[in-house]
Amino acid sequence: MDDHLVDSASGPVPALRWEEPPEGPVVVLLDQTRLPREEVELACTDVPALVSAIRCLAVRGAPLLGLAGAYGVALAAARGFDVEEAADQLAHARPTAVNLGYGVRRALEAYRAAGPEEAAAAALAEARALHAEDAAASTEMAARGLGLLEELAPGGSYRILTHCNTGALVSGGQGTALGVVLAAHRAGMLRRLWVDETRPLLQGARLTAYEAARAGMPYTLLADNAAGSLFAAGKVDAVLIGADRIAADGSTANKVGSYPLAVLARYHGVPFIVVAPSTTVDPATADGASIEVEQRPGNEVTDLAASPLGAQAYNPAFDVTPPELITAIVTENGVASPVTAASLASVGAQQTAR
Amino acid sequence: MDDHLVDSASGPVPALRWEEPPEGPVVVLLDQTRLPREEVELACTDVPALVSAIRCLAVRGAPLLGLAGAYGVALAAARGFDVEEAADQLAHARPTAVNLGYGVRRALEAYRAAGPEEAAAAALAEARALHAEDAAASTEMAARGLGLLEELAPGGSYRILTHCNTGALVSGGQGTALGVVLAAHRAGMLRRLWVDETRPLLQGARLTAYEAARAGMPYTLLADNAAGSLFAAGKVDAVLIGADRIAADGSTANKVGSYPLAVLARYHGVPFIVVAPSTTVDPATADGASIEVEQRPGNEVTDLAASPLGAQAYNPAFDVTPPELITAIVTENGVASPVTAASLASVGAQQTAR
Repeated sequence: MDDHLVDSASGPVPALRWEEPPEGPVVVLLDQTRLPREEVELACTDVPALVSAIRCLAVRGAPLLGLAGAYGVALAAARGFDVEEAADQLAHARPTAVNLGYGVRRALEAYRAAGPEEAAAAALAEARALHAEDAAASTEMAARGLGLLEELAPGGSYRILTHCNTGALVSGGQGTALGVVLAAHRAGMLRRLWVDETRPLLQGARLTAYEAARAGMPYTLLADNAAGSLFAAGKVDAVLIGADRIAADGSTANKVGSYPLAVLARYHGVPFIVVAPSTTVDPATADGASIEVEQRPGNEVTDLAASPLGAQAYNPAFDVTPPELITAIVTENGVASPVTAASLASVGAQQTAR
Repeated sequence: MDDHLVDSASGPVPALRWEEPPEGPVVVLLDQTRLPREEVELACTDVPALVSAIRCLAVRGAPLLGLAGAYGVALAAARGFDVEEAADQLAHARPTAVNLGYGVRRALEAYRAAGPEEAAAAALAEARALHAEDAAASTEMAARGLGLLEELAPGGSYRILTHCNTGALVSGGQGTALGVVLAAHRAGMLRRLWVDETRPLLQGARLTAYEAARAGMPYTLLADNAAGSLFAAGKVDAVLIGADRIAADGSTANKVGSYPLAVLARYHGVPFIVVAPSTTVDPATADGASIEVEQRPGNEVTDLAASPLGAQAYNPAFDVTPPELITAIVTENGVASPVTAASLASVGAQQTAR
């Protein structure tokens, strides 16, 4: 895995791209663990490098993980590695985001369906198709999400609270929840974006702040603990978050800290909105209890404060918000509200039809 | 202000002590900003040094701030500084903790009441009296708090969630909320102490973990965001926190992040208990809206992630929990539950009687 500093003066750096230099194809990732201090790209020439980048969160976010999975299969095919084994390793690199397995499966099925001569090209074409679909879904979610905001709180001038990072860094397009915020900003309807820092890995303070600053949004950073004070002061008009897996009943796994925001939002009568592509809806996971929540290493928590030697930490990467606390789930296909198995099925992916 | 490393092999280091070396009296503080990496004491020889230590949180926590205020007045008196001016500076070093002004007032009134020859000794005697009262209140709160736990959840084996730091580091004795936890631990009734790390200044990860480790408690650290998952999993039997100011109606200002825990506790039917000496109850502050909440510098939030240049931060030091979300307020005089102006008055300090 090579890494090199990027000159980004000419515009935003894509979170993931496919390149074909003379030495052979590579999946190039913007290393999100090093943002915003430095823009460094990782060039993955094999699947173990990509799996490692997924595990350490150099590449992250549900939709982008889908792309990483699909391009990873294409990489294995193009370089002549064992594609079935690569697919298996990629699909299991992290357990919670359903999109990872979905992206792997899409590319793998295209690979299997093609003749031996066209298999690698077919896998790559499928990854590119997924990439384009994700960008298009992003645009559609932004429009539908903004429409929903206008319906719930007519008049614009929104003060939106978000958690973790859900923008261009997690997507082939402008992202999920942050894509909606960007649309509101461009429409002159964003009064303030409240950015939770999102401990332990600070995706809010590092990545959402980076994207908000680039887009010229009016944004304010806060420790996760301070969100309650904003609700109590009546300074939040809506909460917008993404999702890593949405069960058939609407239970939504997202970055740890999302569930407390849902409880606060309910207590204060503030809309709590999940924005995710239809591929994040997983009909095969019945409910919240069936979602596997990744447990991350304790040192992500203990290192910061140099906690006492041997200190144990509880460090789930995600939490699960039940459907009754979610005002609406927005996908590229529509808005499920109230969130029920039926309303969700109508905006989820028609995965069996593929 | 001198500082030197402490040899603590022989036992816990007191958070604050008065010393009278040949060069003149000093207030010696354990520098809490440097725990747990190193145990360093600050020797304050004048009031500006002490005020600076209060502002940077080298000395912190409501009861201990009361002691710092009282000993600060005694220091000014003993060293021949302007005592009235010193008292004014000390009382206004931080706005929220009512105990700071209370400690200053106690020592100042003793100073004023004594003849010129005895004034300095009277101020010191009053600071020492407050110190002893605080230690005694601590013991009493621990007993009453443990009794309340046994009443609310008979059978022991408690899994207690706490926020910020409320132990021997904030008190002349064993502290407030953490004093109750220690009593439960010593009685063999503590199954697990959940320690919120308490961003932005990490008093949980740094100080509560330090005290819990020293006391041999079974404790687990978590990012503040993960508390919601613990409630959802039914792994919290009670929340115990301290307080910086309790208004006459029971509204409680405490470290930012306390209010979201109160909302979560209510949503999950878990007791939410405030433990504070009666001197933290402030009859002169009518309600939550009347409590001045200190706003701290934004860089306490932005520095960690190297957020984009010019990033704004919202960084209140405290939040306010309304009485209807508090199961009980425990002082050395008794337990107010339900929390009403009347029940609270019966366990608050009889300040007019002094």
